[in-house]
Amino acid sequence: MPGNSFGQAFRITTFGESHGIALGVIIDGCPPKLPLTAADIQEELDKRRPGRKLTTPRREPDRVEILSGVFEGKTLGTPITLIVYNQDVDSSKYEAIKDVFRPGHGDFTYFKKYGIRDWRGGGRSSGRETVARVAAGAVAQRLLDRWKIEVYAYTVALGGIYAQECDLDFIEKNALFCCDKSVYKKMEQRILEVKKQGDSLGGIVEVRVKNCPSGLGEPVFDKLDAELAKALMSIGAVKGVEIGAGFKVADLLGSECNDEITPQGFLSNNAGGILAGISNGDEIIVRAAVKPISSIEKEQRTITENGKPTTISVKGRHDISAIPRIVPVCAAMVRLVLADHLLRQRMISEEA
Amino acid sequence: MPGNSFGQAFRITTFGESHGIALGVIIDGCPPKLPLTAADIQEELDKRRPGRKLTTPRREPDRVEILSGVFEGKTLGTPITLIVYNQDVDSSKYEAIKDVFRPGHGDFTYFKKYGIRDWRGGGRSSGRETVARVAAGAVAQRLLDRWKIEVYAYTVALGGIYAQECDLDFIEKNALFCCDKSVYKKMEQRILEVKKQGDSLGGIVEVRVKNCPSGLGEPVFDKLDAELAKALMSIGAVKGVEIGAGFKVADLLGSECNDEITPQGFLSNNAGGILAGISNGDEIIVRAAVKPISSIEKEQRTITENGKPTTISVKGRHDISAIPRIVPVCAAMVRLVLADHLLRQRMISEEA
Amino acid sequence: MPGNSFGQAFRITTFGESHGIALGVIIDGCPPKLPLTAADIQEELDKRRPGRKLTTPRREPDRVEILSGVFEGKTLGTPITLIVYNQDVDSSKYEAIKDVFRPGHGDFTYFKKYGIRDWRGGGRSSGRETVARVAAGAVAQRLLDRWKIEVYAYTVALGGIYAQECDLDFIEKNALFCCDKSVYKKMEQRILEVKKQGDSLGGIVEVRVKNCPSGLGEPVFDKLDAELAKALMSIGAVKGVEIGAGFKVADLLGSECNDEITPQGFLSNNAGGILAGISNGDEIIVRAAVKPISSIEKEQRTITENGKPTTISVKGRHDISAIPRIVPVCAAMVRLVLADHLLRQRMISEEA
Amino acid sequence: MPGNSFGQAFRITTFGESHGIALGVIIDGCPPKLPLTAADIQEELDKRRPGRKLTTPRREPDRVEILSGVFEGKTLGTPITLIVYNQDVDSSKYEAIKDVFRPGHGDFTYFKKYGIRDWRGGGRSSGRETVARVAAGAVAQRLLDRWKIEVYAYTVALGGIYAQECDLDFIEKNALFCCDKSVYKKMEQRILEVKKQGDSLGGIVEVRVKNCPSGLGEPVFDKLDAELAKALMSIGAVKGVEIGAGFKVADLLGSECNDEITPQGFLSNNAGGILAGISNGDEIIVRAAVKPISSIEKEQRTITENGKPTTISVKGRHDISAIPRIVPVCAAMVRLVLADHLLRQRMISEEA
Repeated sequence: MPGNSFGQAFRITTFGESHGIALGVIIDGCPPKLPLTAADIQEELDKRRPGRKLTTPRREPDRVEILSGVFEGKTLGTPITLIVYNQDVDSSKYEAIKDVFRPGHGDFTYFKKYGIRDWRGGGRSSGRETVARVAAGAVAQRLLDRWKIEVYAYTVALGGIYAQECDLDFIEKNALFCCDKSVYKKMEQRILEVKKQGDSLGGIVEVRVKNCPSGLGEPVFDKLDAELAKALMSIGAVKGVEIGAGFKVADLLGSECNDEITPQGFLSNNAGGILAGISNGDEIIVRAAVKPISSIEKEQRTITENGKPTTISVKGRHDISAIPRIVPVCAAMVRLVLADHLLRQRMISEEA
Repeated sequence: MPGNSFGQAFRITTFGESHGIALGVIIDGCPPKLPLTAADIQEELDKRRPGRKLTTPRREPDRVEILSGVFEGKTLGTPITLIVYNQDVDSSKYEAIKDVFRPGHGDFTYFKKYGIRDWRGGGRSSGRETVARVAAGAVAQRLLDRWKIEVYAYTVALGGIYAQECDLDFIEKNALFCCDKSVYKKMEQRILEVKKQGDSLGGIVEVRVKNCPSGLGEPVFDKLDAELAKALMSIGAVKGVEIGAGFKVADLLGSECNDEITPQGFLSNNAGGILAGISNGDEIIVRAAVKPISSIEKEQRTITENGKPTTISVKGRHDISAIPRIVPVCAAMVRLVLADHLLRQRMISEEA
Repeated sequence: MPGNSFGQAFRITTFGESHGIALGVIIDGCPPKLPLTAADIQEELDKRRPGRKLTTPRREPDRVEILSGVFEGKTLGTPITLIVYNQDVDSSKYEAIKDVFRPGHGDFTYFKKYGIRDWRGGGRSSGRETVARVAAGAVAQRLLDRWKIEVYAYTVALGGIYAQECDLDFIEKNALFCCDKSVYKKMEQRILEVKKQGDSLGGIVEVRVKNCPSGLGEPVFDKLDAELAKALMSIGAVKGVEIGAGFKVADLLGSECNDEITPQGFLSNNAGGILAGISNGDEIIVRAAVKPISSIEKEQRTITENGKPTTISVKGRHDISAIPRIVPVCAAMVRLVLADHLLRQRMISEEA
Repeated sequence: MPGNSFGQAFRITTFGESHGIALGVIIDGCPPKLPLTAADIQEELDKRRPGRKLTTPRREPDRVEILSGVFEGKTLGTPITLIVYNQDVDSSKYEAIKDVFRPGHGDFTYFKKYGIRDWRGGGRSSGRETVARVAAGAVAQRLLDRWKIEVYAYTVALGGIYAQECDLDFIEKNALFCCDKSVYKKMEQRILEVKKQGDSLGGIVEVRVKNCPSGLGEPVFDKLDAELAKALMSIGAVKGVEIGAGFKVADLLGSECNDEITPQGFLSNNAGGILAGISNGDEIIVRAAVKPISSIEKEQRTITENGKPTTISVKGRHDISAIPRIVPVCAAMVRLVLADHLLRQRMISEEA
């Protein structure tokens, strides 16, 4: 019932405040005998680490430790606990605005909900919470490896600049995880431009899954696309999610939208690999709309905890866009959904 | 773990195949002493009933019965069971295509998942399943009434025609639940046009919530917007969901996207009433992209259960668009999410 | 969160008040392709039917109907709904005591919890609710059949008379499901004796499981014995549960209590087939202490809803003991636990 | 679905192997603004600490750290993470028996379940896991404090010696948490005696709850007594649980067993404070049967992982009885159940 867990069969629970002692995650339900080392997880974490090119100067090494559930390089089937201690914590900048609600942030709503909040850097609503998701996603991938499932996440839009093609090989070769070489430079420029203005940028992330077996996803409410929508929308900055043809379906005719079937497979993929909530064996394609970073230097109107009007210019060390650091988070969430449904699907298989 | 339940605190479980004996729902967790009659529920059901203007000629009276949980016109706090017996069941048209996978439908994936399927009319993946959701949503509204929460659902796009304004008073006055008088006629015409072509249409539904208190939604994974996204995406025809400014945020600057705060409230509502996953007291606004009805008369390529290529022209009695009948379903899903989170929020309130 | 569901993977939700329209259950998570007919379920229901020898004269045929989830004699993998309509409902006797709390019953606590109650026959706290459990247990057995798991439930004590031996063949041959021919007659006499006195009797039920594979049960909290304890204690009349040697372990030495292991198996079974919460492949043995029926003719002191002192002599049509009708309920609960854990165990198996 | 979580509303998830890096727990759902310090938790932990009189010589300081969820001495409403690093880890004694299944332990069943195990000291099935439960129970008590609920746990039997009276004041004054001054010395002697024989002892723990409000517990499956039964039976050494009169009800008449009601309260408490699964406002009384410690020096027959017969004499550093260290664990589990149901009960209260 409380909201810090995700998944039913492959279930994670995350913890930790942005400027607290540590962030971490317990993974409960991971099958035994999967090979797993801290290095496997670190590799994914490094993709969202602050201090990379075009991102916040907060310097967190974000070293992950495995506290339980792994023995002699293999998972035990027991809870796997991953922890990342906070190190480069500087709460001094927050001191001055501790009674002020930053527009676009959770300050206002957390206060309304709980009547108390850790004002240092957003506490639990901070993007920093996603370090735990990425760590858990790396463990989920170990399970996906058994099916040779591959998950690609990349930037298809940033600050109004849209990718025209999708080159999966280019993704890891640029700091923005952009999938189109021809627009990457423009995106980079746009970031530097907006940074000077003390403003920030939104964008769109796409995730593509290859080799996903058909049959994943539960009927009615726990449809695979419903779970993916929740997974991605649970990332702080995401305001929209679409599968396959997405919002374009509103304008299509049935004869255009339906993916015809042949013995060789589907003739198109408007479904995004999911039919009636169940994977159809084709590529799964999902997109998330990412809002601009809320912390901007430009002055904005707001109120204090006591309801007094004031203005704020957020200084601190902030990204210009949640992209690129949100990209591995989107990949992680998709991995977690797939791992969960792979295990759930096993329960109805026929053998005794 | 199985996927036929929704909600944690206000929890529903639906059952029933499209051409089976009955459809229904158990609501577990509804507080006691709420006034409730079958007529309250029937009123909502009638909005999605087949046989209305511009919809399928299948004639289902869809009379709901309350089997448990209500005593002398009040809820008991025990499980409320609602049932609708199927009456105008005609499976004969399905007989001929029982081995053929209809494109765009769940036939293919249900078979892959279960190795068996009720081929009469889509079984559990049929839109008919939503009758149980609408019934449950009407009960949820009894709980929302305590907070005077109002939920409006309406059509903002159909077949490429988009509403330009939002007149909530017009919604109930037209067969399509359209919110814009100036485009309604065009939408109606488009339907009749496409019907003749043996094709179908997609569209967009918007849901707007008034008087929602701030503080609803759990942190991190069970964010209110994440739950709404799952709720709407769990409706068979929905391929995209967005909150507030939605996909437009990708193109905005932070200074445009952030909703500034004043003692009188927010100066804009790009957030769609939800900040960091928690309701902020403003109107909640969410949209769902609805794909065209998959059952069309136009001939399409497909395969049989044995993998043989064939073609299909789906005759039966079908809607041209999931709109308008999906509109009360969207409203119901939003009501269910809100009822659930109203109860969940009570658990952390301060009084002993 | 609400309490009318049981199981995680093989999940049931029951509904219905004792004197309402119907009782029933939804089973969600039952694998597809299991053979299932209403007759399979009816056979189990008949064992707990009122009107049998030595039981209440309430004459309920308790005919079960399958409303969903089964097609052409096989489960679909979708929710299976079973319903039993109430027929011989006579609420007139309750009219007179509708403001009086019957001692030993849930009248007092349901009123304290909900502030409202269906006073006709105990409503949801009535033993009649268990008809839904027995029906669901019969479906669970279809799954257990794949592993050839057999569940035996029988009476080992009634009214102070204890069985000295356990003859499984005798169980179905006597009205009390007693496992010891030599004490059966004494038990029968004891019931008739106490019936004349307007009083009632308690007893003990034992459940024995053969052919349960090792490895069932989750570590730490969802131990197999913990789940069985909850399952049995959730039956209204049960006040104690023990596994294997049970309360006798308090007096044993470790060297007496430990079950030594040989290549041929365990040399004793004080563990009752469960070690560290996981089945060890030996017989599972569990016992439940059953309190006397609370409805007795003997006059007792009590209070009214307004807190006024009064006395009560419960007339109605009541059993003298929950035994024998509780016996198939205990079997059903054990079946449900095993079905759930069989499915849960599948999720960690090694194959991809 | 995996089994390392407990509770729905006040939900804990524990992690950590006996000889791993650390043990800990995440508490999700704890309301905000409760006063909480590490010292509060430490006080409870010290009661089950090894190295106390009559217990194992393993010397673990068991210092708890709060990693998240608490800010300036108050809970935030976010996940509270508690961690205890293992220090006096000596796995050398286990090296020699790493392929041998210790009778009475989970070695055999964990291997059957997972196909892999951490052989160092029982891994996750070790009693050491309960350190996390006790820590979580101390947090639960902060919530119970709001209702002034008091939980007493104490020894009522050990090695065949039974307490004749219950003096709550004496509990904290003796090393065994025994409630009867007149038998304490005998119990102490019995331990020393059996220690010399290389054997071990069982016993019975009773838990008594004062000031529990009426109305706690959900109907049907999540009855308060069912939840307590699961909670206590989930402790490794427990083989039986009873409420109120417990197994004695089997021999009582209804007229003896029913607790008559007067305006001043119940005239007896055979119900143990729970009627129809819901607390009735009287004292809650529950007992757990505790088996003797399985690790004994006396030689026993067993087998190796390869199925070869062998014998074992477990040396290591072991308690003679799970009592007294299991006593605070029982208290903790009862606290966790109550905290969970206090929150669950809030959801159905009438105010908007």
